[in-house]
Amino acid sequence: MGQEIERKFLVKVDFKSKATQHFHISQGFLSTVPERTVRVRLKDETGFITVKGIGNASGTTRFEWEKEISKEEAIQLLAICEPTIIEKNRYIIPTNNNLFFEVDEFLGDNKGLLIAEIELPKENTFFEKPNWLGDEVTGQSKYYNSALSKKPYSKW
Amino acid sequence: MGQEIERKFLVKVDFKSKATQHFHISQGFLSTVPERTVRVRLKDETGFITVKGIGNASGTTRFEWEKEISKEEAIQLLAICEPTIIEKNRYIIPTNNNLFFEVDEFLGDNKGLLIAEIELPKENTFFEKPNWLGDEVTGQSKYYNSALSKKPYSKW
Repeated sequence: MGQEIERKFLVKVDFKSKATQHFHISQGFLSTVPERTVRVRLKDETGFITVKGIGNASGTTRFEWEKEISKEEAIQLLAICEPTIIEKNRYIIPTNNNLFFEVDEFLGDNKGLLIAEIELPKENTFFEKPNWLGDEVTGQSKYYNSALSKKPYSKW
Repeated sequence: MGQEIERKFLVKVDFKSKATQHFHISQGFLSTVPERTVRVRLKDETGFITVKGIGNASGTTRFEWEKEISKEEAIQLLAICEPTIIEKNRYIIPTNNNLFFEVDEFLGDNKGLLIAEIELPKENTFFEKPNWLGDEVTGQSKYYNSALSKKPYSKW
């Protein structure tokens, strides 16, 4: 329960050698209405249901609530989500100040798209920008996973 | 997790003397799309988040998944639900075969509406119809709570 402060970037060059862990994510949406998105995620063997509110003007801060659920619950909820389910590999890359980037390598209809996100304790928290980081796309709604599930990268 | 088999009726005459318990419910919807409604409920001091799928042709059977959450979580989630929040008192009235009716006395914009529901283990399970039970409205979408939150009884 709380707020999520997040900045989002495209990714330029190979980053995988920097990753300390990675896992597979399947995710779908029970609702993609921006004021109250409801996401179902299966992260390897663990499920989650997540509710996010609308972002502030800059797109960095959103209300977020998340609950862990079982793999079986996640699979049954994914089955009634809006088409289509997003499949991606997520790589964790530590950076300064105990922060880390999450880099998503999208699969399926979004293959070719790479997005890095960093979650910040405060909006003005300093973080180093590694050389593999591309243009910032924070707040651009076409990069929201909820948008990618409806209009995937292959159809841009 | 599972399926919900439910029949729904209007209520004719005073039923409160038959109730063995009652409580207050505040509920809102994160999504009212029939294929995947997402409900947030505060039942006295306990919260719930519930996902329901679309009904079958007769309207009696729907996929249902529910998780208990804290009162504080429910209050924060209700704050971002679609307008408007439904307020009602629910009365529990036992009947034959260890079944029971839940009778909702709606408040606020739905004041005057009384709906009785009975959840059945099988679609063809026998149950007695008490004399306070009115016409059956199973499957009539205007009586769904998700519909009442958007077009309340006072605006019919």
